[in-house]
Amino acid sequence: MNPQVAILSIGNEVVDGRIINTNASWLSQEFIKNGITPTLVTSCRDDETEIVQVLQYLSAHADFIITSGGLGPTSDDLTRHAIAQFINKPLVLNEEELGRLKHRYKLRGRKFDNSNNIQAHFPEGSTIIPNPTGTAPGFITSSSNRSTMFSLPGVPSEFRTMVLESVIPDLLHRLGSSARVPSSVQFHLFGIPESEAGKKVSLLRLPKAVRVGYRPSFPVLEIRLETVDSLEELTGAESVVREALLDFIFSEEKDGSLPKTIHQLLCDNQKTIAVAESCTGGYLGKLLTERGGSSTFFLGGALTYSNEMKTKLLGVPKELLQKFGAVSPEVATAMAKGAHTRFGSDIAVSITGIAGPDGGSEEKPVGLFYLGIASAGYEVALRFFLPTTREYVRRYAAFAALDSIRRYLLGLPYLGKTAEITE
Amino acid sequence: MNPQVAILSIGNEVVDGRIINTNASWLSQEFIKNGITPTLVTSCRDDETEIVQVLQYLSAHADFIITSGGLGPTSDDLTRHAIAQFINKPLVLNEEELGRLKHRYKLRGRKFDNSNNIQAHFPEGSTIIPNPTGTAPGFITSSSNRSTMFSLPGVPSEFRTMVLESVIPDLLHRLGSSARVPSSVQFHLFGIPESEAGKKVSLLRLPKAVRVGYRPSFPVLEIRLETVDSLEELTGAESVVREALLDFIFSEEKDGSLPKTIHQLLCDNQKTIAVAESCTGGYLGKLLTERGGSSTFFLGGALTYSNEMKTKLLGVPKELLQKFGAVSPEVATAMAKGAHTRFGSDIAVSITGIAGPDGGSEEKPVGLFYLGIASAGYEVALRFFLPTTREYVRRYAAFAALDSIRRYLLGLPYLGKTAEITE
Repeated sequence: MNPQVAILSIGNEVVDGRIINTNASWLSQEFIKNGITPTLVTSCRDDETEIVQVLQYLSAHADFIITSGGLGPTSDDLTRHAIAQFINKPLVLNEEELGRLKHRYKLRGRKFDNSNNIQAHFPEGSTIIPNPTGTAPGFITSSSNRSTMFSLPGVPSEFRTMVLESVIPDLLHRLGSSARVPSSVQFHLFGIPESEAGKKVSLLRLPKAVRVGYRPSFPVLEIRLETVDSLEELTGAESVVREALLDFIFSEEKDGSLPKTIHQLLCDNQKTIAVAESCTGGYLGKLLTERGGSSTFFLGGALTYSNEMKTKLLGVPKELLQKFGAVSPEVATAMAKGAHTRFGSDIAVSITGIAGPDGGSEEKPVGLFYLGIASAGYEVALRFFLPTTREYVRRYAAFAALDSIRRYLLGLPYLGKTAEITE
Repeated sequence: MNPQVAILSIGNEVVDGRIINTNASWLSQEFIKNGITPTLVTSCRDDETEIVQVLQYLSAHADFIITSGGLGPTSDDLTRHAIAQFINKPLVLNEEELGRLKHRYKLRGRKFDNSNNIQAHFPEGSTIIPNPTGTAPGFITSSSNRSTMFSLPGVPSEFRTMVLESVIPDLLHRLGSSARVPSSVQFHLFGIPESEAGKKVSLLRLPKAVRVGYRPSFPVLEIRLETVDSLEELTGAESVVREALLDFIFSEEKDGSLPKTIHQLLCDNQKTIAVAESCTGGYLGKLLTERGGSSTFFLGGALTYSNEMKTKLLGVPKELLQKFGAVSPEVATAMAKGAHTRFGSDIAVSITGIAGPDGGSEEKPVGLFYLGIASAGYEVALRFFLPTTREYVRRYAAFAALDSIRRYLLGLPYLGKTAEITE
């Protein structure tokens, strides 16, 4: 039988719904990838009595409990107290951890206040879980008749690092051969809705032993194929899915992302790039520089929100702006060409559109945007339309630009409609 | 004492993390608006035994339980069976609901299959909760020694409609005057760590009836004061907290954010702005244009990742770059001055720094960045240092720039060290 694992998120803000509990869903996914199936996912308020009550319940049903949150230095951080009470041990100061804590404060140029001392207190007999990216370490407690508990801070970046670096390896070690790691492959896609991708996959009639999971994270979609014992069937399924979804797939890496793919492609092709952004206001540039080493290919760009800036920084003719308007294939092309010639990059990409919520018209509604791509002897304008919120229009436009760079570099057909230019 | 309310989401996809449980967080928020405080938020798998076990636990701690999910017609929908087992009643067919169910299928042009009959079966003695937007109704069960349970389908649109139209009115009716809407105020802060803010607040010795909650969301911090009955004490606490945290507070609005504050301030002051970004690659521009109407104040800017672009687009002298390096107060100031004079904005802000993970040196380590601010007859360079991941350095730099704009406009002291410039 599989070991029982429970997840407990502690914090008023989780129970109140002020934050959406992404730690728990992320952790479940990571566990499942490693053959550990969580059975209960719970949250409770920052209340010592309530925490102890929940632990009593979970302890009766789970071999392992992972808690997140409530390890900070303030008065509403009660997890360590509750766990100490639950396992009936005192909180004791760990001098070594106190030294590390003070050192970390110093490194960050922050004054160490004695109120932080509490973060170096742990239930007697705990094992420390290091926190490489934050201040408060976590800890493991276990007693003969209780579950083994892993307590981690709730800050997502710290929580995730500690899970990957400590909790999962430790759990797998404890479980020995009882964890059956499923084999899986994944595809990252752009430009195809979940329902459409789902339909294409369902027509393939994959073998039952291969589980298919969809995880949309706007505007990209991850499809995951998983099996516990039919490796051969998985390999078969992988190739038919790849064939069915074609060039919508931009990555098959575990931690694939569109910015990562473009970063790699530009490096591999030794091409430099510059941007000219209007409605996205810097979003595309931000994505292109997300990863270290982006100075290899990213020269920079122009944020030309106003028409005057389009003329000043990119040399877009005033007459063009007057005749066709800023959101037009003509201006998109002129922006890309301007960036290409003025900034001297191999490729230049422009975005101009109506992100809303105001500024739309019948002819040019909110959600309409054009991308321009220019390189030596080449130019194209692409039309996209996705009527949604300002945030989503901007995100979609920035990702569509990345995907169009991919299609340009790989010689694939574009997703946006090639717009006719009147000049 | 407030009634205890628990929320239970039933479904493998929730526990697995394949979907993020937005039903629960949404419901918590709706409850709180109506003075109902949820105490436990739990999820469990589609397993009859597990559902019954969780209900036993919740029933011992809650007066009311709201379940979502598991009411569909397929074999993994087990909620109605588990609840019937839990309260020890048989499932009985409700002929009236069966008629309605068939009618709804007909209306939608779908064939009614007998396997759907199960959706008209309810634990004996249930009260039906109508489902105006979907097929499966929900139901209320209560027995003398058990909690009252509201069972709803998990489809978010159906779930939400049924909560708003039936569950909340019913609950408020049952609770009569015992539902007390909490009053709360919140402060949004930048530039002060949670521990430091927590210490300042703890020294204030706020009345016990006022609950304090901290929610860090890097790099900002929200502090929330909440009370159910001591409105006067809340008002008192509000003003002492405001006095203690001073200009670290950038907003007291419920949906406050630093981009929103800057948007408002620039509009109110009728000032235009332009940016000059290096290591952030567009992040600051993206934040400044997050909200509709940002064209009122945002003209645009230059992304000058390479030194050549700094000279070309902003007129930063080559000698300055050679002498002091791109990450220096001298270059930060020159970038801001260049943007100010070339782009014609009232204010210009620049960012130049080392985001990492590579490119740091002993003298200029990863996490070091300078901001420049220039306006007519004014210039300043500010030094910041936060050695952390690339993502966090960039986010911190963009937010520090926003906060510095706020401090510039309001005449407040800067957080960054004013850097001396050698020219």
